[in-house]
Amino acid sequence: MNSLSAPSNDSLKTSGGSEVEELVRRLGRLPGLGPRSGRRGALYLLTRREEALQPLIQALQNAYENVSECTSCGNLDTINPCKICQDDRRQKSLLCIVETVADLWAIERTRGYKGRYHVLGGHLSALDGVGPEDLNLQSLKTRVEAEPIEEVILALNATVEGQTTAYYVADQLKDFGVKITAVAHGIPLGGELDYLDDGTLTMAMSSRKDL
Amino acid sequence: MNSLSAPSNDSLKTSGGSEVEELVRRLGRLPGLGPRSGRRGALYLLTRREEALQPLIQALQNAYENVSECTSCGNLDTINPCKICQDDRRQKSLLCIVETVADLWAIERTRGYKGRYHVLGGHLSALDGVGPEDLNLQSLKTRVEAEPIEEVILALNATVEGQTTAYYVADQLKDFGVKITAVAHGIPLGGELDYLDDGTLTMAMSSRKDL
Repeated sequence: MNSLSAPSNDSLKTSGGSEVEELVRRLGRLPGLGPRSGRRGALYLLTRREEALQPLIQALQNAYENVSECTSCGNLDTINPCKICQDDRRQKSLLCIVETVADLWAIERTRGYKGRYHVLGGHLSALDGVGPEDLNLQSLKTRVEAEPIEEVILALNATVEGQTTAYYVADQLKDFGVKITAVAHGIPLGGELDYLDDGTLTMAMSSRKDL
Repeated sequence: MNSLSAPSNDSLKTSGGSEVEELVRRLGRLPGLGPRSGRRGALYLLTRREEALQPLIQALQNAYENVSECTSCGNLDTINPCKICQDDRRQKSLLCIVETVADLWAIERTRGYKGRYHVLGGHLSALDGVGPEDLNLQSLKTRVEAEPIEEVILALNATVEGQTTAYYVADQLKDFGVKITAVAHGIPLGGELDYLDDGTLTMAMSSRKDL
């Protein structure tokens, strides 16, 4: 340790009064941001009142007023049930289980999946105190029972919590007479063996398939 | 190049309709953010409507309505002239020239400076087409003439543009009979010689002082 350490630059202190400080604090709480980037963001907005600040207020206000959670699948949309749930061109027989809306968006961006979704709202985690009652499991069972679902695809993260949740969900659905599958794990597209972590490589080896 | 390159994940596409996409776009334009972090931010806000989204709207709206540029120094504040310009305990004889309000805030956080400020609003840059007429130089000259300023401290960035601007400002003020100084450049507090860039070390050596 050096006794001449530089003073911290992470305080919220600005010289623009409490309005600016509150803005810095609020911006700094966005994921991936902190006090420093909160200050940068606040200055960016305050020096571009009409081109950036006003449109951002409008975008947030519109989202606040119009976007809500789909009561069927948990997606975020301006209509309820959401566009995906209402889309008759989507296969009613396929249901993809994801942890968060971000995961749903990620799968939608691939444009390859034509079934529907169910958002759990997180994963089981003893450490964070998230139990089965905190996830949208009851509504999942209701849907599997009421809708003509033939296959449930578990698209949960390849983390310890994600996989624990996948096994729990699979166990909960085993008496409903639906096929339960899970997304494949292995070497990502473009991945070079030399740079992969041992866990992925081990999994890819043990999950090898006939060509 | 690998022919199996992963598909881009940087599109703005979400599945939440145009309101969500507009929010992602607006958030992604904040400095340091992009489409990915814009999406993360939008999801963070939309899943925390009352705890995060509503207070952020309020903070932005308050800032939009109440914060403006000080017509004297260029600082951002809820009052005009700003609190620093109005503060009679601050030395009227000292004027610190900074490029941006962020720099002013940085100096204020040190709590060591008790004079006033003048925000130039940027630096001279031929590449970006920023000339002397784009900086708050005329108001600076007016202030140096009208106010009882004895010393002008140039606290500009230690970049090529910052130093060019410093020399230009010093030249513009040379006939006003004020002392012109510049912040010291050298090894930063806690800096270890072994890890410093050559430019800083060369400058620190050539600017050495008697002990």
